[in-house]
Amino acid sequence: MSALIDFYFDFSSPYGYFASCKIDDLAARHGRETLWRPILLGVLFKRTGAQPLPLIPVKGDYSKHDMERSARLLSVPYRFPSTFPVATQSAARAFYWLSDREPERAKSFAKAVFRAFFVDDINISEPERVVAIAAGLGESSEEIANAIADPENKERLKREVDAAIARGVCGSPFFIVDGEPFWGADRLDQLEKWLASGGW
Amino acid sequence: MSALIDFYFDFSSPYGYFASCKIDDLAARHGRETLWRPILLGVLFKRTGAQPLPLIPVKGDYSKHDMERSARLLSVPYRFPSTFPVATQSAARAFYWLSDREPERAKSFAKAVFRAFFVDDINISEPERVVAIAAGLGESSEEIANAIADPENKERLKREVDAAIARGVCGSPFFIVDGEPFWGADRLDQLEKWLASGGW
Repeated sequence: MSALIDFYFDFSSPYGYFASCKIDDLAARHGRETLWRPILLGVLFKRTGAQPLPLIPVKGDYSKHDMERSARLLSVPYRFPSTFPVATQSAARAFYWLSDREPERAKSFAKAVFRAFFVDDINISEPERVVAIAAGLGESSEEIANAIADPENKERLKREVDAAIARGVCGSPFFIVDGEPFWGADRLDQLEKWLASGGW
Repeated sequence: MSALIDFYFDFSSPYGYFASCKIDDLAARHGRETLWRPILLGVLFKRTGAQPLPLIPVKGDYSKHDMERSARLLSVPYRFPSTFPVATQSAARAFYWLSDREPERAKSFAKAVFRAFFVDDINISEPERVVAIAAGLGESSEEIANAIADPENKERLKREVDAAIARGVCGSPFFIVDGEPFWGADRLDQLEKWLASGGW
C-alpha cells in the first residue's frame, strides 16, 4: 500500500501545527507519504457555525491549557501567538504555488510558516512576513509576492477549500487515509492503528 | 496518592459513555478511585454557545462515524440512539439521590443508564424508564420516582452543574485529577500518563 495520506490543516491551527510535527514520521513508519493541504478554517466555520476554540467562553481557557500541555507531551516547541487567530490566505496561496512546482519545497515552507507563528510569534497574516519566510528558504521574494497576489492562486485556494469541504473535512487537522477520515491531533493514535492493522 | 478523580459526564454523551466504560479500570491501575458526577450539557452549551456535535452540519456526519469507530476500537457495545439528544435530568437526579446513600450503587445505576441508552436504545429522558432501570438493580421504584420529582433533588442537580461550570468543566466527559483538567474521551491517554508520571 502506498496511497497518500491527505493532511488538511489551517496555518493558524495549534493542533494542526502539532500534527504537522508528527504526521510525516508516522506515515513513514507505515511506508506511506503525505499530501499537505492547507485550508481556511474561517470558510469551514461558516458551514458548521463554529468559532475558534480559544475564543469560546470556558472552552477557550481549557483549550489554551490543553494546547500547552499537549505541546510539552509531544515535545513540540510552542507558544500561543500574541495575535490569534489570523488570516492564513497568503501562506496558503504561497504554499499551493510552491506545491505545484515542488511538493517537498512547499512542505519545508509550511513547516517554516508554522514555526514562525507558533514559536517565533510572527504574524503570518501579513503577506510580507510570508514572503520573508519563503525567502529565508531560498525562494524568490518576487515570485512568492506575485503568487500571493495572483487572482489565479486565490481561485486555486478557493477550489482546494471547496474540495475539502466536499470531502467532509470539518476541522484542522484532518486526515484522510484510504477514504477513512480522522479529525484532530488526538486521532493520530487511531490513524496509526488504522495504518498498522488495515482498519477495525 | 489517593485523591479522587472527578469524572463529569452527561448521560446522553456518547464519548461520556465510552469514558465511563474505561475510567474506573484506568484509575485502579494507578491506585485511584473515581467520583462520578453527572451534569447537564444543555446548561454548559448555553455558556459556550455550543450545540450537540452530531447535530452540527458536516461535523455531525463525521462525529457519528468517529463514535462508531471509537466504540469498535475500545470494544464497547454501542449504537447511536434513535432519539438524540435527550434530556437527562431524571437520570441525573436519581443518580445523586442514590449517590448520597451509597456511591457504588449510584455508579452501578449510571452504568445501567448508559447501557440502556447506548446499547438498548431506551429513551432515558422518560422518568418511568429511569425508574425501571433502577428497579432492575433492586432499587425501590417508589423512592426513585420520588427522588426524580423532589424539588430538593432538582436543586441539588442544579448546584452540581453550577459547581462544575465554576470549576471550568466545558464538555463531556471531563476529568479533574489533582486539580488538572482533561476534556474528552480522547484525553484518557494523557490522563493515564499524568497519573503514571505525576505530570509533565
